[in-house]
Amino acid sequence: MDQYSPRDFHALRWHESVPRFAAGADTPRAWLERCLETIAAREPVVQAWATLNEAGARAAADASTARWREGRPLSPIDGMPIGIKDLLETRDMPTEMGCAGYRGHFPKRDNAAVWALRQAGAVVLGKTVTTELGGSHPGPTTNPFDPARTPGGSSSGSAAAVGARMVPAAIGTQVGGSIIRPAAYCGNVALKPSQGGINRGERQATSQSTHGPHAGCIEDMWQVAIEIAARCGGDRGTPGLMGPAVPPAAARPERLIVMETEGWAALDAASRAAFETLLERLQAAGVTLLRRRDHPLIEAFEAGIAEGRAICGAITGWENRWGQRNLLDQDPEAISPRGKAVLARAEAMTHSDYQAALARREEAQARFIRIAPLADAVIALACPGPAPVWSGDQPGEPLDPRPTGDFVFNAPSSMLFAPAVTIPLLAVGGMPVGVQVMGQIHQDARVTGLARWMLENIDPISG
Amino acid sequence: MDQYSPRDFHALRWHESVPRFAAGADTPRAWLERCLETIAAREPVVQAWATLNEAGARAAADASTARWREGRPLSPIDGMPIGIKDLLETRDMPTEMGCAGYRGHFPKRDNAAVWALRQAGAVVLGKTVTTELGGSHPGPTTNPFDPARTPGGSSSGSAAAVGARMVPAAIGTQVGGSIIRPAAYCGNVALKPSQGGINRGERQATSQSTHGPHAGCIEDMWQVAIEIAARCGGDRGTPGLMGPAVPPAAARPERLIVMETEGWAALDAASRAAFETLLERLQAAGVTLLRRRDHPLIEAFEAGIAEGRAICGAITGWENRWGQRNLLDQDPEAISPRGKAVLARAEAMTHSDYQAALARREEAQARFIRIAPLADAVIALACPGPAPVWSGDQPGEPLDPRPTGDFVFNAPSSMLFAPAVTIPLLAVGGMPVGVQVMGQIHQDARVTGLARWMLENIDPISG
Repeated sequence: MDQYSPRDFHALRWHESVPRFAAGADTPRAWLERCLETIAAREPVVQAWATLNEAGARAAADASTARWREGRPLSPIDGMPIGIKDLLETRDMPTEMGCAGYRGHFPKRDNAAVWALRQAGAVVLGKTVTTELGGSHPGPTTNPFDPARTPGGSSSGSAAAVGARMVPAAIGTQVGGSIIRPAAYCGNVALKPSQGGINRGERQATSQSTHGPHAGCIEDMWQVAIEIAARCGGDRGTPGLMGPAVPPAAARPERLIVMETEGWAALDAASRAAFETLLERLQAAGVTLLRRRDHPLIEAFEAGIAEGRAICGAITGWENRWGQRNLLDQDPEAISPRGKAVLARAEAMTHSDYQAALARREEAQARFIRIAPLADAVIALACPGPAPVWSGDQPGEPLDPRPTGDFVFNAPSSMLFAPAVTIPLLAVGGMPVGVQVMGQIHQDARVTGLARWMLENIDPISG
Repeated sequence: MDQYSPRDFHALRWHESVPRFAAGADTPRAWLERCLETIAAREPVVQAWATLNEAGARAAADASTARWREGRPLSPIDGMPIGIKDLLETRDMPTEMGCAGYRGHFPKRDNAAVWALRQAGAVVLGKTVTTELGGSHPGPTTNPFDPARTPGGSSSGSAAAVGARMVPAAIGTQVGGSIIRPAAYCGNVALKPSQGGINRGERQATSQSTHGPHAGCIEDMWQVAIEIAARCGGDRGTPGLMGPAVPPAAARPERLIVMETEGWAALDAASRAAFETLLERLQAAGVTLLRRRDHPLIEAFEAGIAEGRAICGAITGWENRWGQRNLLDQDPEAISPRGKAVLARAEAMTHSDYQAALARREEAQARFIRIAPLADAVIALACPGPAPVWSGDQPGEPLDPRPTGDFVFNAPSSMLFAPAVTIPLLAVGGMPVGVQVMGQIHQDARVTGLARWMLENIDPISG
C-alpha cells in the first residue's frame, strides 16, 4: 500500500460523471461495473461489506441507465452506487447490525433514508459493516490505507468502502463519533447533520444519533444528504435538513474558533504539528482564529465539553440498556464480552444518573450557543491522529475499550446536536487525518460551504 | 346490557387484592383464572383481543404466586394480568398492528414498556386490538356497554378489555386521541403521559405519540405507569415520568380552567348538560372555574388549539408517510382504503407544509405555557359525548372518516405534549363519558392527584 497523500489520492466523484450520462458517454451500469471490479479486487483485505446485492444493483443501474438515456433522471444521484450501514433496514438484504443477536434478521422493509435514496434512483449496492450495534466491538473491516489499522467505527464499512474507491458514497450513523472519526481515518468527506436532520425511520437509536453520508467529495456528500431530506425529511418533530438543492457554494470563513477538547493534551506531536500548519495556512488566507485563551465564553465552552466522552457514554449507555438486556435475555451470547462490559456499566446507573447526564448535555449546548456570535464556525481535528493499529483481541489480555479509536474529538458535535463536516486535509505518517468544521444547529449548509472553501483554497498537509 | 352508571359500575381493582396476596387469601393465579372466565364469557361479543397467551400467562401467574407466598414480590403489580396494544412488540406473541401488511409479523422481542412490565412481575396476558396502524380504520372490537357502538380507537381493545372487566389494566398509545377517547367511551381511568414520559422503545411512531395505561381505578393506573418508568425511563433524551413510587394522594384543585375546543359548539345537549352539572358540583366544592371569556390568555390558548385536529393530522400524516408508502410498495393491499385516503392527503403535503404545521404546534404550546400560572390544571370532556353507533362500512357509501369517534377533545393534550388523565364521572344515555384533567408537561403526578380528588369527592352524574 502506498503512503496516503491528500493531494494525490483521488476518491470517486459521482457528480463529475453526470454530464457524461446526459451525453451518453457513460452509464450508471458501466459505473456500477467499475465499482464491482474494485470491490472484487480489494474486498478480500478491506472487508467493508456485510452483504452485497449485485443482481439487485445491476437491475437498478439498468433502470437508471434507461432513465438517463430518456433524459428523465429522478435526481442528480440517479444511478449512484451506494452502501448502507448495516444498522439500517433494507427490504432486499438482512440487517444484522454486526451483532450475534441479530444474525439472520431480515425485516424486509426499507429505512426512511434507504427508501428516499431508492426514490431518488440511487443504486443500493449492499450493507456495510458496522461495529456491534454501533458500539465499540469491531467488525472485520480494515483500513483501506493500511490493513494493520482500524478503519474507525462504528461506520467502519461505509468509511472503508469510500476510502477504497469501491463506491462514491455510503450512509453512516453517529451517536458518539461513528461517522466523523471513521471518515477522518479513511480519507472521506462526511456530514454528521444537525440532530434530527435526516429521518432515521425505524432506527431511532438514541437521543443523539444521526444518519449521514460518507463520500469521496463534498459535492456528492451534500447531494446525497439533501436528496434524502427532500423525500423523507428529518426526524419526527424537527424541521429536517435545510439548504440548497445543489451543493452549497464555497464560502470563506472570516473567523473560526479552534476547538481543543480533552484530546488536545494527549495528541501526538506529528498530528498536532500538521494541524497547526493548517491553522497557519488559514491565517495566511485571511481567516482570523480564536482559541480558548482568547475569550472567556470559548473557555467556558471548552469546559462544558471537557468530559464529553463520559457524558455521551452515560446517556447512550442508559438509552441502549433495555434493548440490549432484552437481547441477552433471549440469548446470553447475543452480545460480545466487550458489549456486555458497556452494558454492565449502564445497568449500574440509576435513572437519576441519566437525568444528571442530560442536564450536563443541556448546559454544554447552552454554552455552545453562547459562542455563536464570535465566529462563523468551529474548526478542530476530526480524530486524534491517524487510525491506530489493531490486531484483534488477544487471549488472556484485557479488552481494549476503544479498538476503533477514540471519539474525543467527536463527542462535542454529537452532544451539542451540531452539524459537522470532516474533510481530508492532512496526512500523518502516511495515513489520513481529517479536519472538521462544526456549526450551530441547522447550519449544515453553512458548514458545508465553509468546508468546501477550505478544500478548494487550502493546500493539504502531508506530515 | 344494563345501562352504564358510573356510580354502580365496578371495574377491576388490582391494588385492593394486594393485602390478600400477602396474607395468602388470594393468589395471582386465581386472579388470572377469574379474568380468563370473564374473557371466555364476553370476548365473543367484545372482541378486545388480537392474541391471547393463556399458557404463558398461567406460568407467569404461578411464578408470581410463588413470589408472593415467599414474601418477595417484584413490585405492587407483581402478578397483575395486563393487555398490550398490538402496536407494541412482544417476544411471545405476534405484533400485527391491525394491518394486513403486518399479518404474521413476529419480531420476538419485547417493547421497552413490555420488558419493564415483565421485570415488575406483571402477567402479559395478550395483545389488544388496535385500529389499523393506530389510525382511523377500526378493528372488530365493540363497546362493552353496547355492542352497536364503537369502543373508540385506536386503543380499542385496551379500553374495551378494561371496560369489560377482563383485565385490571392495559397499555394503550396515543398520537391524536387514542388513549383518552376510547378510555372515556369505555368507563376507564387512563393516563396519556407527558410527551416522552414512558419509553416507547422500538415504537417511536410519531413526534407526539405516547404510551400509557388504561385501568379500572386511578391507583392501578398510576402504579402501572410508574413501575414502567422506574425500569426503563422515558423516551431517549427526556427525563421520563416523574412522581411518587405509590399513587399520588388526592389533591383538591383551587382553580381549574375549562377547555372548550372546537368540540364545544357541536356537542349534544345531554353531554353538555352533564358536564355543566359536574362543573357546578366542583364549584359547590369550592373550586374556582375559569373559562375562555374570563382571561385573554385563556382565549388565546383556545384560539391556538382551535384547529388542533388539522394540525395533528398534518403532522402525523407526514410523519407516517414514508413508512406507509414502504408497506404499499411491497403489497398494494397492505393498507385499507380508509388508511390509503389518509396517506394520499399526507403525500399531497410538501416538506414546507409539515414545517408550517410544526410551527403552529409550537405556538400552541407557547400559549399553553402562558396559562400555567392561572390555575392548577385544565378540565374538559374527554370525548364529544357517548361512543357513536358504528355498524361497519356500507358498500357503495362514502367511508366514514372517523368511525371510532372524534378526537376533537384529545388533540390538545397530544399536540401540547401535556399529561392528561380521564376519569369516568359521567353517563349520558346509559353510556360512559369521560372527563379529563390536563396539566403542564411533567405534571403527571399532579394531574393524577387532582383527578383522584375528583373521583373521591365529586358525585358522578348520570345524564
